[in-house]
Amino acid sequence: MSRPRPISGFPEFLPAQRQVEQHVLDSLRATFELHGFVGIETRAVEPMSQLARKGEIDKEIYVVRRHQGIVDGTPDRDDLGLHFDLTVPFARYVLENSGHLTFPFRRYQIQKVWRGERPQDGRYREFTQADIDIVGENVLAAHHDVEIPIAMLDALERLHESIGLPPVLMRVNNRQVSEGFYRGLGIEEPAGILQRVDKLGKIGPRAVGELLTTELGLTHAVADKILALAGIQSFDTSFVDEVRALGVRHELLDSGLGLLGEVVAAARAFVPGRMIADLSIARGLDYYTGTVYETSLVGHDGLGSVSSGGRYDQLASDGKVTYPGVGISLGVSRLLVPLLNKGRLRASRSVPTAVLVAVDDEESRPAAMAVAQVLRQRQVPAEVAPRADRFGKQIRYADRRGIPYVWFGGIDGEVKDIRSGHQSPADATAWLPPTDDLAVRVEGHWDD
Amino acid sequence: MSRPRPISGFPEFLPAQRQVEQHVLDSLRATFELHGFVGIETRAVEPMSQLARKGEIDKEIYVVRRHQGIVDGTPDRDDLGLHFDLTVPFARYVLENSGHLTFPFRRYQIQKVWRGERPQDGRYREFTQADIDIVGENVLAAHHDVEIPIAMLDALERLHESIGLPPVLMRVNNRQVSEGFYRGLGIEEPAGILQRVDKLGKIGPRAVGELLTTELGLTHAVADKILALAGIQSFDTSFVDEVRALGVRHELLDSGLGLLGEVVAAARAFVPGRMIADLSIARGLDYYTGTVYETSLVGHDGLGSVSSGGRYDQLASDGKVTYPGVGISLGVSRLLVPLLNKGRLRASRSVPTAVLVAVDDEESRPAAMAVAQVLRQRQVPAEVAPRADRFGKQIRYADRRGIPYVWFGGIDGEVKDIRSGHQSPADATAWLPPTDDLAVRVEGHWDD
Repeated sequence: MSRPRPISGFPEFLPAQRQVEQHVLDSLRATFELHGFVGIETRAVEPMSQLARKGEIDKEIYVVRRHQGIVDGTPDRDDLGLHFDLTVPFARYVLENSGHLTFPFRRYQIQKVWRGERPQDGRYREFTQADIDIVGENVLAAHHDVEIPIAMLDALERLHESIGLPPVLMRVNNRQVSEGFYRGLGIEEPAGILQRVDKLGKIGPRAVGELLTTELGLTHAVADKILALAGIQSFDTSFVDEVRALGVRHELLDSGLGLLGEVVAAARAFVPGRMIADLSIARGLDYYTGTVYETSLVGHDGLGSVSSGGRYDQLASDGKVTYPGVGISLGVSRLLVPLLNKGRLRASRSVPTAVLVAVDDEESRPAAMAVAQVLRQRQVPAEVAPRADRFGKQIRYADRRGIPYVWFGGIDGEVKDIRSGHQSPADATAWLPPTDDLAVRVEGHWDD
Repeated sequence: MSRPRPISGFPEFLPAQRQVEQHVLDSLRATFELHGFVGIETRAVEPMSQLARKGEIDKEIYVVRRHQGIVDGTPDRDDLGLHFDLTVPFARYVLENSGHLTFPFRRYQIQKVWRGERPQDGRYREFTQADIDIVGENVLAAHHDVEIPIAMLDALERLHESIGLPPVLMRVNNRQVSEGFYRGLGIEEPAGILQRVDKLGKIGPRAVGELLTTELGLTHAVADKILALAGIQSFDTSFVDEVRALGVRHELLDSGLGLLGEVVAAARAFVPGRMIADLSIARGLDYYTGTVYETSLVGHDGLGSVSSGGRYDQLASDGKVTYPGVGISLGVSRLLVPLLNKGRLRASRSVPTAVLVAVDDEESRPAAMAVAQVLRQRQVPAEVAPRADRFGKQIRYADRRGIPYVWFGGIDGEVKDIRSGHQSPADATAWLPPTDDLAVRVEGHWDD
């Protein structure tokens, strides 16, 4: 077989890169669990009917069929497709298992998803997402809209502190604010406005103002108010007074400002500087019904929004019970693939091994294995040199993999730190490397 | 939408069950890393040509196609299928990345695989495998055949010790032993013999003897020797003398006995009682070329072999370089799904949360959130009660999820162990639950 080539849109990592990814996933998981989210996994496939949106099957869905059925023309009994996000499978999981779950149900889910998109910058056909959601039975209190971004920001902040992931900025809005404001201006159908305002980042306020007056026939005064609202941003709750100063009144606006104020105040208290109220954020109009989140990596705007989500009043429904939810999704691949490919995040070594046990000759290999096993029993990752070469060559074997220590002799032997060259007597039943050398470390390289 | 039903062959876990699975996967990963294996992941899909064996596409392979292509009749540029094991993708990964890997390359890989088989006892269409392999460039020393089973047995032994997973028995043989023995008997084509001997477990020695004499025309004396060899089992290297006593000589037999002896001796030293030389084991004839492993859970023979593998002299080849390997695969789903469904393995609670922070009223929710965040900063999983109900109801909320502690008041508050009812003053910046209560524990229930 000739050397295989990668398949476009299906990123894979070299071992050292995978260790960085694993470290990030472990850290996310640990933080989500600290916030009381329980991990679940769903199968990779859903019935095609479940994957259809509004009765229509997305052309980017990957259809899955047994080769048998294709060969003999018999259709599969199950018409299956690969899931393209973790929300659809989660909604199905909640409905299927509602009798066995306790609500509000807090779950995290870290899995791969697939979309047959044309691969391009930051778009993958297979990628990993990390979602957290809280789902209620018929009702879900507003304060969960506060918990969700705090948990995600906490997770990203821990990565910032531990491996130097750039800080994030989460932009948050509440659809009730915009909608209430528009209604207060006498506008009955806010969807058209939201669509135009959503273009602010791309075409700027002047062009959006044009669209509002020409396409929607709004007066300049009303269009200006709308642009003024969309221009409001604040790291604290001062945005509330700024909105009030625009002189528009509506009870939906009041409710939205109250909720958004709570979210921003809590984020300011628990993860200061990481969340901004941004009243231009619209996203996912037909899906989200209240709070919406979107998150960029500071200094890496090219990555786009790495984490977004919001409140949806109906995640799922079986006709009798409705399940409202609030959630946020982190695009792990979208975040990591570019950083790993640029070498921004690196593992301190390419293997977990902390100690290579050298071998004098093949006859003494069992003794070397015994040393390795004694070290492992005390949680020190160890492997035995594959060949009884001269020691210089065995040390090179360790060096090429970044293994910091080489052990010589038996249980009562000597250990060499091959970085400093320092070698000293050591007892394998008692010796431990410094904590920093025990496991692979992940380090950020942001300067070059 | 009415309540969805499970899809046959695609097992999913409830949250408490998933925590058991996660615990097992973490434990496996930790042990593999202690043995110096580095984790990799490969994409879920491979080109169909890669998934074909001997030019033939298995009918059980799941073909993956973009819905777009199915709708408009344009074929996908890539002809893709879901991987059905982790060996084929790993071989492709080694070839594709050989220039970036260091050999011998030790990797573990824990992922889902898919096979469109008819679902039946112990067979799934989506299931998780945990593989370890060591791969060399052109050569791979025999002693790696010793390392692989030791690492897997160590992983299973740690699960036995930590959560009471039943002990395992790994049966090991070396194809050179059987083949050398048959050649020593003057048989030129051992494959036919191996096929018949492979039926020993099912039809017994008498029937196999019949097949050997009638179908293959062997003499009764030769058939008896073959059956005598297949009947040899030992936990130590005494099998070597037993084979010698049969009076057959061949250099391939000598080599096989030497290798098998090393494997058994090492397992006896490092994981005593868990490996037996069993000269009837044949498995995977066209694939394995030396040592073969197969593993059952003691007292759960119905599960079949939960972990098997062996030595293959050609995992991959690009025409210039050949990559020999030795590996073993653990069927995680095959092992866990029945044990979880029978309730043999259970999580101590259904959520990660160790402390529920009670809420006096909605106004004091931020104070309760502050307590939770302080606990989390010290790695105590905490969540805030979703409703400011009377305390009895909040305690019931904790109780239903198995959360052991409820916190009342602010940072200087009181903490109640709801199992004992004991409540005492506590400072959230200093208090820690007993280690046993910090994380979810997994417990075996084997008696009922």
